[in-house]
Amino acid sequence: MEPVNNRHRVLVDAIEKRISANYYDPAHLLPDSGLTELVRLATLAPSAFNFQNWRFIAVRTPEAKRKLWEAAGRQAKVLEASATFIICGQLPDHSVLPERLRPSVEAGFMPEATSVLWVRGANALYTGNARMQRDEAIRSATFGAATLMFAAAANSLATGAMVGFDPDEVVREFGLGPDEVPVLLMTVGRTLPDNWPQKPRRPLQEVLEFA
Amino acid sequence: MEPVNNRHRVLVDAIEKRISANYYDPAHLLPDSGLTELVRLATLAPSAFNFQNWRFIAVRTPEAKRKLWEAAGRQAKVLEASATFIICGQLPDHSVLPERLRPSVEAGFMPEATSVLWVRGANALYTGNARMQRDEAIRSATFGAATLMFAAAANSLATGAMVGFDPDEVVREFGLGPDEVPVLLMTVGRTLPDNWPQKPRRPLQEVLEFA
Repeated sequence: MEPVNNRHRVLVDAIEKRISANYYDPAHLLPDSGLTELVRLATLAPSAFNFQNWRFIAVRTPEAKRKLWEAAGRQAKVLEASATFIICGQLPDHSVLPERLRPSVEAGFMPEATSVLWVRGANALYTGNARMQRDEAIRSATFGAATLMFAAAANSLATGAMVGFDPDEVVREFGLGPDEVPVLLMTVGRTLPDNWPQKPRRPLQEVLEFA
Repeated sequence: MEPVNNRHRVLVDAIEKRISANYYDPAHLLPDSGLTELVRLATLAPSAFNFQNWRFIAVRTPEAKRKLWEAAGRQAKVLEASATFIICGQLPDHSVLPERLRPSVEAGFMPEATSVLWVRGANALYTGNARMQRDEAIRSATFGAATLMFAAAANSLATGAMVGFDPDEVVREFGLGPDEVPVLLMTVGRTLPDNWPQKPRRPLQEVLEFA
């Protein structure tokens, strides 16, 4: 098979074979180096203005898992998965953007003037617009989460995104900042055989329109 | 090289080599069958309760591109990319959920009683909670967008996520429903050589915490 076709097949397979896992092998441990690698890859996701307005809390000790389990309706997977990430979005604040863009300017591909324009653009888009700020926190964190999902697949690990949790309790128990939204939880680990297959999808004609 | 290692390399490469493309070859055409395949894969993304609360509008005629270009601050990439997807999130409404879950029940892995519990859970989570509804529309659409990004990579196509557009104009010009939010635009096409590299990221210790 040609390399390019193999590449196509591997990527399509990762999408087609992904499941939202509920049952994890509780004996499977992931070292912190493995969790760090997943987050390194997750942060290569895109974000508006390269804001990178996300934060990842890797919950993997028994004590921390127990707290998260309480905040997540006592769902067993939080205890059984190797780790659960609390994926936070941060409300974008243009004042941090010069620092986020400086490495791109220093690398020589982004003109200084462009970074100034971007900061101005971010100011115009977000300042005083609480809804847009929250939307962006959710978008960025979700792009990070989706990329973490594929990073896990690369490492033969299963994932499960969860929205069923008490956000206030998560904020309180895990010390999120006032500018942080717990956007979703993502379990990561080795699956057990009892998981459901990928659930059937809506017919494409319901969700796709050409213009 | 062992197949498993090759698989790891291909997936990590797709994450590491992704860029947000600004410059597209305007001569590159994508047939509707190719756009359909991207959306088929995008809809394999996860969504809460398997709601699949998303819709994809593939903007690819010169007339439709022109309308979207006007709504998107006249950014040239909307005219030059093979197509731009308007990725919409839909406010989740538990009354559509039995229909979305029926194929999973009919496939035999989801007990009927579970689907009833899920509908009840969705009712409790979203009904009367406008913020949670909007959050979910944004999360689902963004998971779909991120998966479309990897589907494009599988087909050696570049992508670019955009939030700089007038949402009201997009709603009006492209006939979005009252329950639909235009969450982001995503250009798709063949890149030209002038694109920037992937922008540098924040140090991991700023965005990763262990608990």
